Amino acid sequence: MGFLKKYKNIIEAAIEEYKFTDQPAQLYEPMNYILHLGGKRLRPVILLMAYNLFKDDLKPAVKAALGIEYFHNFSLMHDDIMDRAALRRGKETVHTKYDENIAILSGDALLVKAFQMLEDLNPALFKPCFQLFSHTALKVCEGQQYDMNFEEQNDVSYGEYIHMITGKTAELCACALKMGALVAEADEEDAENLYEFGLHLGIAFQLMDDYLDVFGDYEVVGKKHAGDICENKKTILYILAKQQGNEKQRAELDFWFDSKEEKTEKIHTVVKLFKDLDVDKLCLELINDYTEQALNCLEKITASEEKKQDFYELMDYLLIRES
Amino acid sequence: MGFLKKYKNIIEAAIEEYKFTDQPAQLYEPMNYILHLGGKRLRPVILLMAYNLFKDDLKPAVKAALGIEYFHNFSLMHDDIMDRAALRRGKETVHTKYDENIAILSGDALLVKAFQMLEDLNPALFKPCFQLFSHTALKVCEGQQYDMNFEEQNDVSYGEYIHMITGKTAELCACALKMGALVAEADEEDAENLYEFGLHLGIAFQLMDDYLDVFGDYEVVGKKHAGDICENKKTILYILAKQQGNEKQRAELDFWFDSKEEKTEKIHTVVKLFKDLDVDKLCLELINDYTEQALNCLEKITASEEKKQDFYELMDYLLIRES
Repeated sequence: MGFLKKYKNIIEAAIEEYKFTDQPAQLYEPMNYILHLGGKRLRPVILLMAYNLFKDDLKPAVKAALGIEYFHNFSLMHDDIMDRAALRRGKETVHTKYDENIAILSGDALLVKAFQMLEDLNPALFKPCFQLFSHTALKVCEGQQYDMNFEEQNDVSYGEYIHMITGKTAELCACALKMGALVAEADEEDAENLYEFGLHLGIAFQLMDDYLDVFGDYEVVGKKHAGDICENKKTILYILAKQQGNEKQRAELDFWFDSKEEKTEKIHTVVKLFKDLDVDKLCLELINDYTEQALNCLEKITASEEKKQDFYELMDYLLIRES
Repeated sequence: MGFLKKYKNIIEAAIEEYKFTDQPAQLYEPMNYILHLGGKRLRPVILLMAYNLFKDDLKPAVKAALGIEYFHNFSLMHDDIMDRAALRRGKETVHTKYDENIAILSGDALLVKAFQMLEDLNPALFKPCFQLFSHTALKVCEGQQYDMNFEEQNDVSYGEYIHMITGKTAELCACALKMGALVAEADEEDAENLYEFGLHLGIAFQLMDDYLDVFGDYEVVGKKHAGDICENKKTILYILAKQQGNEKQRAELDFWFDSKEEKTEKIHTVVKLFKDLDVDKLCLELINDYTEQALNCLEKITASEEKKQDFYELMDYLLIRES
């Protein structure tokens, strides 16, 4: 996965180059802080990868990629307030380190800075890139709202869940890929296929995240085992279990997902229910379906197989992390 | 002031025409709610007025004007959370009526919608209008951050105060006016003079607001008398008093502005101090200076005096409300 490192380094260097030095520091420092918490930089990396399918000199795409990363971090800043999350990547969230007002206002400014990162593009490119980005920004807000709505809703359907994660996760991946194509002035069909590829990949990625939370090797995954069950999060596993279970099993699931206690018994019982209902296998099948669809889109793109190789490797990295 | 009514009606009609009907309702309804709380619609109105200096058919400017109003309401939504304000224009604020999470996320979406209102412009106009708007958006965030900083700061200077209100109030007025000129494809110098006019007008307007809070006929103003003194807000009157006062008077001012009690004695003493120090007269002189500077900018604009007449009337309306 050396190529990933190459792209990530470009993003890290750009974050340094465009570090915020404006005043007042109370507004701009938290933006630097969150951008320095690290992470895979997946979204800007795939923008550069998409661009690279069509053009070699990455320079014209770097600021757009950075804009995507800014946007992602803006959404994290505000989501963390809404989710009352104290930690992110093991460090204090912005509203914990500073305060909530600062996290709101810095987030707002970071959203504006995200859009501004497109301003170097010529007018003919700037407008479609902005339109794609603003459309995506609304989809991400909608996804976050659905996610909050689902906390109060016991009958989330499979379709509603896919719609929510499409907004919350997949749209920004799709946007990043399509924007890479737009900035490279690739033809429209290639751009559209990259967008569709991104949507399917993003959904598969989120489903895998849900799967690994419970069925992953949690020492490899690096997160708390079954954290989603502890927090009563209605992931795809819960939704499939509700779909597959009989009345008694559904009632049992409801019972545990209404309880606020963190008991070993809770995790044990819910995981057993998931396994009894073959929810793990069904989830892997779904991931497989979405991956297949993503691959179909990738195939249609008019770039050499050699150039596409990085994308195949990326998919392996993201989706076969372990299973 | 019939012309104001004409422009305002266009904005009100546009708010109805572009009412948000997207899903989920939890995200979009609060945006409709805040836009229906009313107000003077001053910012979009002056955009249309500026456009009208150069072109007659207002239609191409309406969505840009609406974008400015969306932005203003986004900033109100988030500011109300930060200021813990329960009421706005006598009605519940968004975070009071719904909840804080919704006010954060709906505000975010409204900010995106504000920028999207420029998307109908052709690419050659869209880019400069977006750049002006995004620059302004950051200035407004900076102004709000300075305003929050000043709550903890007892030595705010005159310069710092003017810088803060420039960001928080004047920049958006200047942006609205310049954008009207840009959309009308006026020449660069006229656009720049309208921008400068807006900055000076916006500052004068905010200073008048500070003045009227204490020295206005509060039945006309329609706000609580000396609300700023009750809330220990460091307005221009406080800053001038600190500048003019001797050590004893400054200490007295500090004493009252450190107290959280709402006493008649507090208002009485502070107002007397302001009067002893001629702060009321000094403030009116400042307003006069900024108004003069605004008028100078207006004079330079290459439109007929007849066309400028609305602007003179607007200034009378905004600045000689009573004094």
